[in-house]
Amino acid sequence: LTYKEIECVVNGDYSIKGRLEDKEVYLPFTFVQRYFEVYGSINSYDGYDRFELQHSYSQIHPPRDSYSPDGVFMSFEFYNVEDRGRVKCISGIEGVPVSVQWNRNGHFYPIQIAQYGLSHYSKQLMEPSPQRVVLEDGEGGDLNTWLLPDRRSQIAIKTDRTNEENNLIEFDTPDLLKNPGITISVEDHNLSTLSIDVKFINNGSVTVLLRTNEGNLFRIHYVLSNTTMTLEDRDLYYGIGSSKKGKWIHLTRKVLIDYDKGQILKLAKSKRGKVKLTPAKIVAVCFRGHGFVDNITLSSEAHMDHFFDAANYLVNYQDSRGGWPIQVTRKIIPGKLELKPGWYSAMGQGQAISLLVRAYSVTKDSKYLQSAAKALAIFEIPSSEGGVLQKFANTYDWYEEYPTTPGTFVLNGFIYSLIGLYDLKVVSSGQTAAHAAKLYNAGMQTLKNMLLMYDSGTGTFYDLKHISLGVAPNRARWDYHTVHINQLLLLSLIDEDPMFQTTAQRWMGYLKGKLSPHN
Amino acid sequence: LTYKEIECVVNGDYSIKGRLEDKEVYLPFTFVQRYFEVYGSINSYDGYDRFELQHSYSQIHPPRDSYSPDGVFMSFEFYNVEDRGRVKCISGIEGVPVSVQWNRNGHFYPIQIAQYGLSHYSKQLMEPSPQRVVLEDGEGGDLNTWLLPDRRSQIAIKTDRTNEENNLIEFDTPDLLKNPGITISVEDHNLSTLSIDVKFINNGSVTVLLRTNEGNLFRIHYVLSNTTMTLEDRDLYYGIGSSKKGKWIHLTRKVLIDYDKGQILKLAKSKRGKVKLTPAKIVAVCFRGHGFVDNITLSSEAHMDHFFDAANYLVNYQDSRGGWPIQVTRKIIPGKLELKPGWYSAMGQGQAISLLVRAYSVTKDSKYLQSAAKALAIFEIPSSEGGVLQKFANTYDWYEEYPTTPGTFVLNGFIYSLIGLYDLKVVSSGQTAAHAAKLYNAGMQTLKNMLLMYDSGTGTFYDLKHISLGVAPNRARWDYHTVHINQLLLLSLIDEDPMFQTTAQRWMGYLKGKLSPHN
Ligand SMILES: [Ca+2]
Ligand SMILES: [Ca+2]
Repeated sequence: LTYKEIECVVNGDYSIKGRLEDKEVYLPFTFVQRYFEVYGSINSYDGYDRFELQHSYSQIHPPRDSYSPDGVFMSFEFYNVEDRGRVKCISGIEGVPVSVQWNRNGHFYPIQIAQYGLSHYSKQLMEPSPQRVVLEDGEGGDLNTWLLPDRRSQIAIKTDRTNEENNLIEFDTPDLLKNPGITISVEDHNLSTLSIDVKFINNGSVTVLLRTNEGNLFRIHYVLSNTTMTLEDRDLYYGIGSSKKGKWIHLTRKVLIDYDKGQILKLAKSKRGKVKLTPAKIVAVCFRGHGFVDNITLSSEAHMDHFFDAANYLVNYQDSRGGWPIQVTRKIIPGKLELKPGWYSAMGQGQAISLLVRAYSVTKDSKYLQSAAKALAIFEIPSSEGGVLQKFANTYDWYEEYPTTPGTFVLNGFIYSLIGLYDLKVVSSGQTAAHAAKLYNAGMQTLKNMLLMYDSGTGTFYDLKHISLGVAPNRARWDYHTVHINQLLLLSLIDEDPMFQTTAQRWMGYLKGKLSPHN
Repeated sequence: LTYKEIECVVNGDYSIKGRLEDKEVYLPFTFVQRYFEVYGSINSYDGYDRFELQHSYSQIHPPRDSYSPDGVFMSFEFYNVEDRGRVKCISGIEGVPVSVQWNRNGHFYPIQIAQYGLSHYSKQLMEPSPQRVVLEDGEGGDLNTWLLPDRRSQIAIKTDRTNEENNLIEFDTPDLLKNPGITISVEDHNLSTLSIDVKFINNGSVTVLLRTNEGNLFRIHYVLSNTTMTLEDRDLYYGIGSSKKGKWIHLTRKVLIDYDKGQILKLAKSKRGKVKLTPAKIVAVCFRGHGFVDNITLSSEAHMDHFFDAANYLVNYQDSRGGWPIQVTRKIIPGKLELKPGWYSAMGQGQAISLLVRAYSVTKDSKYLQSAAKALAIFEIPSSEGGVLQKFANTYDWYEEYPTTPGTFVLNGFIYSLIGLYDLKVVSSGQTAAHAAKLYNAGMQTLKNMLLMYDSGTGTFYDLKHISLGVAPNRARWDYHTVHINQLLLLSLIDEDPMFQTTAQRWMGYLKGKLSPHN
C-alpha cells in the first residue's frame, strides 16, 4: 500500500497527522476515540487480529417477559454491590455495606443497602443452588477435627436448651487475641462464605485464618467491638458489636470480600497507586473466649442471609417519619446546591420498599410490610420541607433522589422510587395499597409527560439540572444510560403505554451510534 | 514502519477496512463522516495539501454590541431570501416572494415575505451605498438615446401635472408583444436591478432584453396580467396585475433573479436533474402601449424598494383578526398533526411586526404601526381556537410557529415572535406598548424556564415534539443551530439574564464538537 502522511486540521483549531492513500484520508483512532468518545481495541480470535470499534462500553441484558414484586429486581442479579470501590466494607455489626461515597469516614447509605439486599435476592432466584459444606453442627458425635491451643482449653457437645433435638458446641479458652483459639481446619475447597451461629458468654472472637497465594498467613478477627474495620499488618479486625455479648449471633461473611477490603485499606494507607490484590484461601476457623457455636458452614454463596441483613437493617433504622435519613452532606453544586446531613432520598425510600416487600413475600412477617407502608409518608413532604416531593414547572409531581431546591430531577432515582411504589401497591391491600397507588399513579403520569425530556437524541440526560438551573446538560454516561433502558423495559411490563418500549428501543440504538433524526 | 490493512468491526454489526501501523489504527474518513456526521475535504493553500475536518458546516457571524428595533435585524443582512429554491419567484404584482414550500402551486408565505423585507432592510444598513445609473428621467432635454420601432410610434417629454418641476416621458406604440417596443439601450455595466415609475393609459408592457453568455437573446416581459410567471421558449412573462391600468406603478425588479427563476422553471419542466444557470446581461429596456414613464434606473441594489414592497404587502393583506393567514396545508406528522389552510403563525406575526416597526421608524407613517399593533390579538387566541397561544405543561405561555394541538414548540419561531413583540414594545407607546410588553414578558418568562430543554448536550433540538408527542427528538441541523445561537446573542443584548450569553457560548462550542460534560 502506498500512502503518505497528511496534516489534518481539526475545526481550524489544531492539527493531527493522518494518512492519505489515493483519495481516502485515514484518521488515527487515538484521535477518533478522544474526539468522539468511542471505544476500540485490537482483539485476536478465529486466527487473526481485528480492530473492534464500540460506540459504548455498556450492554443490555436480555429483557424479561414479566415483572413481579416478589421476583428478580430489574437486572440486579448482575450487580455486585460489595465489590464496588465505594463500599468500604460490609459492616460486621449490621451485615450491610458501609459507603465511603461523599464521606471517607463511611456511612450507612440506604440506597446502597437496599441495592445490596435486592442484588442478593435476585441472585438467589437466578443462580444455581450454592455449594454448601457444614464443617461442624455438633450432630456428628465426636470432635476429633478440632485442635485445642492448650490443656486448659475445652470443647464439648451440649444439647440446645431451646431445641432438644439440636446439639451445640461449647468452647472455653482464653479470650486473648494472642491465643490461637480452638480451631477447625478447612480442607482445600474454594467455598469462601462463612456462616455461624455463635454466642459468647463473656468476651470472645472468631478468627478466620487465610493463606495467601504468596504463602503468607493472614487473619481476619471478628471481635465484639464497635469499630468497623482496622488493620494491623496481617491482622484485620471487624467489629461485630460490643452489645452482642450473651446473645446468639447469626454471622455470615463473604470472607474473601472482607479480606479484599482490608487489603484495599492497606494499599490506600501506603498510598500506592494501583490496587493489586493477592488471592487467598480459607485454611481454618478459630474461636476464643467462652461460648457456644453451631452450624459452622462454608458455602459458595449465602444470598438470603445478606438479603435479610439488609431488610432487618432497614426495619431497625427507619426513623419516626418513616424515612432512612442520609447522614452525609451531598454537594450537587458545591456552595450552591447542597443537602445537609439528614436528607431523605425518594430512591432510598423506593428501593427500601422494594426490598421490604420482598422480605414480606418470603417471610409473611408483617413488620416488613409495615415498614414499607411507613416509608410512604416522606413522598408527600415537599423537598423544601425536608421531604422528597418536587414539582416540575409547578405542575408535575416528582420524587427526588436528591431533594434540592430547585430540583435536579434525576431520572433513574425517580423511576426506582416508582418501582418501589408499584411493588407495595401490588403486594399490600387496603389503605396502604390505596396510598401507594395514589403516589404511583401521580408519578407515572409525571413520567409519561417528562420521560422524553431525558432523550438527548444521541443518549440520555442523567438529570434536568440544565433546565432547573440553566447549566450545561449532564449527559448520562453509558452505564447510567443502560440503567435507563433497563428501567424502561421493566416499566413496559407493568404499564401498557407503548412509549416505554418504543423509547427503550431507540435508546438501545444510541448504544450503537444510531442517532435520532435531524431536520 | 509496516502499514497494512486491518478489518474494523463496528459495534459487532459490520466491518470496514482500516489501516494498521505499529500500534495505531487508522479509520477511513468516508466511514467517520457518515458515522459521526462530520465534514471534511482536502484543501490546498500555502503551498501544500491538508485535510480539513469540520464538525459542522455552519459559522457564526461576529456578534453585535447592541440591538435596536430600527436597526439591522439579527444577522439578516446575510440572508438572500429571493435566491432560495423554495422561492418560486418575486411576484410582479406585489413585489414579494412567492413560496413553493408545502405547495408547488405557490402561495404568499408571510414569514418569507417578512424575512425578505427584513433582509433587504438590514442589507441597506450594512452594505456600502449601491451603484446607481439613471437611464432616463426626462430632465436631460433630448430623447436621442431612444429607438422607435416604427413611424407611428412616438415618444415625448411632458411636464408632470402633479409636480411641475418634474418631467415625464410619454410613449405611444402598439401594445402587441410582437412589437419590439420603444427601446432604450443599456451600456456594458453590471447593474441588474431595474426601477421605473410607469403608468399605462390602456394596455401595455415593459420588456427587459437580456443577452446570455452563450450569445442568445432572452426577453422578460412585465405585463398587465395576474399570471405570476410563465415561460415560452426565450420569452418569460411576469404579471404585474391587470388592475394597474391607468395607475402609476413603481416597479423594482432584480432582473437577473427574475431571469434565474424563469430558467429554473424551464429546467424543472424539462425534468433535468441539476440546475445550471446561464449567466446573462441586461442590454435594453422596451415599453409598449400608451403611457408615461419616469426615473428609469439601473442599480446594483434597491433594498428599500423591496423592503417597502414587503411592508406594504403586510399592511394590505392583514385580515380582520390582525393576522396573516397561511393558505396551505402544513403537515407536521402527515395524517396526525396537520394545519389546514388559514392557520396563523406566531413567527409570521412576529416577523411581520419587526418589519412593520422598521417601516414606521423610517416613514413615521402610522399605518405601519397600527398594523403591527393589530397583529397582537392573534397571540392571545389559543392554538386550539385558531390562534397561536400554546401552553407547555399547562403552565408556560408559548407562541407557536406551527399552532398544532398538541404543540410542537419550535424554538426559533418562538424567539422570532418575541423579538417582534420587543420591537413593538420599544417603538410604540400607550396601550399598544403595554399590550406588547405583557405578551413579551410572559414569553420571555417562558423562554427562561424552557430554553435549556433545547440543549441536547451536543447541539440543539429544533422543537419539543419528542416531549409533546413522545416521538424521537428532532435534532436541529447545523444551520438551525446557528439560528438559535444568533437569536440568543440578540436576546443577550436586550435582556440582562446571563443565561443567554452563557448558553450561546456553549452552543458555539457544539459547532466545534465540544460536548457538554457527562456524569
Ligand atoms: Ca447443631
Ligand atoms: Ca423626471
